[in-house]
Amino acid sequence: MATAHPGNEPNPGMIFETLLAFQRTAALRAAIELDVFRAIGEGPGDVASLAKHCSASERGIRILCDYLTVIGLLTKEGERYHHTATSGLFLDPRSPACVASISRFLGNPAMTEPVQHLADIVRTGHTTLHGQGSVEPENPVWVDFAHSMAPMMAPMTAPLGQIVLEGLAGPVRVLDIAAGHGLFGIEVAKQHPQAHIVAVDWAPVLEVAKANAHKAGVGARYHALPGSAFDVDFGEAYDIVLLTNFLHHFDHAACVGLLRKVHAALKPGGRAAALEFVPNEDRVSPPMPAMFSMSMLTTTASGDAYTFRELEAMYREAGFGRITAHPVRTGPHTVVMGIAG
Amino acid sequence: MATAHPGNEPNPGMIFETLLAFQRTAALRAAIELDVFRAIGEGPGDVASLAKHCSASERGIRILCDYLTVIGLLTKEGERYHHTATSGLFLDPRSPACVASISRFLGNPAMTEPVQHLADIVRTGHTTLHGQGSVEPENPVWVDFAHSMAPMMAPMTAPLGQIVLEGLAGPVRVLDIAAGHGLFGIEVAKQHPQAHIVAVDWAPVLEVAKANAHKAGVGARYHALPGSAFDVDFGEAYDIVLLTNFLHHFDHAACVGLLRKVHAALKPGGRAAALEFVPNEDRVSPPMPAMFSMSMLTTTASGDAYTFRELEAMYREAGFGRITAHPVRTGPHTVVMGIAG
Repeated sequence: MATAHPGNEPNPGMIFETLLAFQRTAALRAAIELDVFRAIGEGPGDVASLAKHCSASERGIRILCDYLTVIGLLTKEGERYHHTATSGLFLDPRSPACVASISRFLGNPAMTEPVQHLADIVRTGHTTLHGQGSVEPENPVWVDFAHSMAPMMAPMTAPLGQIVLEGLAGPVRVLDIAAGHGLFGIEVAKQHPQAHIVAVDWAPVLEVAKANAHKAGVGARYHALPGSAFDVDFGEAYDIVLLTNFLHHFDHAACVGLLRKVHAALKPGGRAAALEFVPNEDRVSPPMPAMFSMSMLTTTASGDAYTFRELEAMYREAGFGRITAHPVRTGPHTVVMGIAG
Repeated sequence: MATAHPGNEPNPGMIFETLLAFQRTAALRAAIELDVFRAIGEGPGDVASLAKHCSASERGIRILCDYLTVIGLLTKEGERYHHTATSGLFLDPRSPACVASISRFLGNPAMTEPVQHLADIVRTGHTTLHGQGSVEPENPVWVDFAHSMAPMMAPMTAPLGQIVLEGLAGPVRVLDIAAGHGLFGIEVAKQHPQAHIVAVDWAPVLEVAKANAHKAGVGARYHALPGSAFDVDFGEAYDIVLLTNFLHHFDHAACVGLLRKVHAALKPGGRAAALEFVPNEDRVSPPMPAMFSMSMLTTTASGDAYTFRELEAMYREAGFGRITAHPVRTGPHTVVMGIAG
């Protein structure tokens, strides 16, 4: 029959579990919404007290918490549920590292609805969303992104700041394109007291970034430049341009066009740094960057998770040299940096 | 912060991946719908030929097949995709063991839609579906089940037949409750030439079972008894009653009531055999039976994946003795059998 490729034993359970994997997403989203992870952290963790804390039924809580235990997001001892290392640090709202808010952005209908039409999307090759999809002008989803994805990105800001600032002294002008929550530019301002940040994004998104800059004490060196990165006048003589989580929304030609514009805004020797999910050249590893292209297929017209070789080619076509990759140890992302020739 | 339980390292990627796990389901469903697995089996497996076979875009096919590779349902060598042992045997329509049709039942809106309201379901403790949920009288979902889930159940029919027939000789009367596709009763008829099967289910479902019985050459010993298992008159003096994938839809009291009715229909010493997802007493292992309770939470008013101890208690209350568990090696199910006292 069908030529089986050498590998593991055939496993029909894997098919069953994949066809029900949508329950995993639903279980985690429901647990976050019901405040289960705070209740677990506060203890004692039995079904009756959890149900009370969450204003929920005991049957529902028991089945939900058993399910979360099976998928590795809780543990169970006797009749009591406890945090795993992951849920305690990243899902309990009492933890400063809590990333539960990302459930809101990743569960936003603009992100999830197109996936329901995946066969159609594979047929046509682009999102069922209107026009450019999630990157249509002024899409309100990015205000949500700015609010809810910040905790996921926070651990990556310090490494990015160190990479882009390495060896720089004196006044530094930084352009932060598609600033979103603003955390990357803000971190550069925190690491370098003579850095001034110009942040580009849609005006309502920049309100979030400005508020974060003021909270971080760098508001005086933080300047908003509202508009589309493709249309707005960047100004010039920047030392650093940040392009965080941005290029993956567009095709090769659009990325090259934008990188040319970035190149023109940099001083000679200036640095353009993209933070991206960068899969290996095989495009199927490591898992997180490789799987990210599915999000780009479903929500954009022509975006992708680009390999280093593809990003390098874009930079080169736009006039950059000395293009290097810097994997970020604190997250699944890679910084790809080019120097303006 | 929150007391972390001893365990693995904290892993925020796990949260990200769980919140996007619904993409796994969508990817497999889309690949089945687009006939990707047949195209992979026929080769050569490059993006251009796959896209042509599936009448789809190359961008869409590449991203879909890369994604299926990451989640272990394809392999990739250079620019070509190949079957894994699992996809070749269970997803290629050219394979007699193909189970791809289960995508239809597991993706049926009656099964998937309630999961979108999981937080509400956990609050109230029962499905958002009307009344008894998926087991409301004459729910057309069971015709779909009968057609599409048969390949998943097929490997378990032979072991079930052996278990229930062990040591029996001469004429055997078998009642197959909630027969569905009918495969279990049909297999008993095939294994035992003097077995006569009476199959209970909704009339339109029994049409599927009768057709399967005729195809299997046992039509003359196959008798349809349409109606609800709770209301229909079973008749009496059965040697064996099969209750496959049925008890989990109902609460303890309803199960005991039904088992009493089953007991009354059996000869003294007759056998009642339930095929069930039976989790360990901890309710969180093994994964497949333990996770099955989530499907019962979302689609029924009060069903569950019952442990052996719970099933044993039901049997005992209904008058059965010598209650034994027989794990089925060819699937995730267990046969729980009781002898009429």
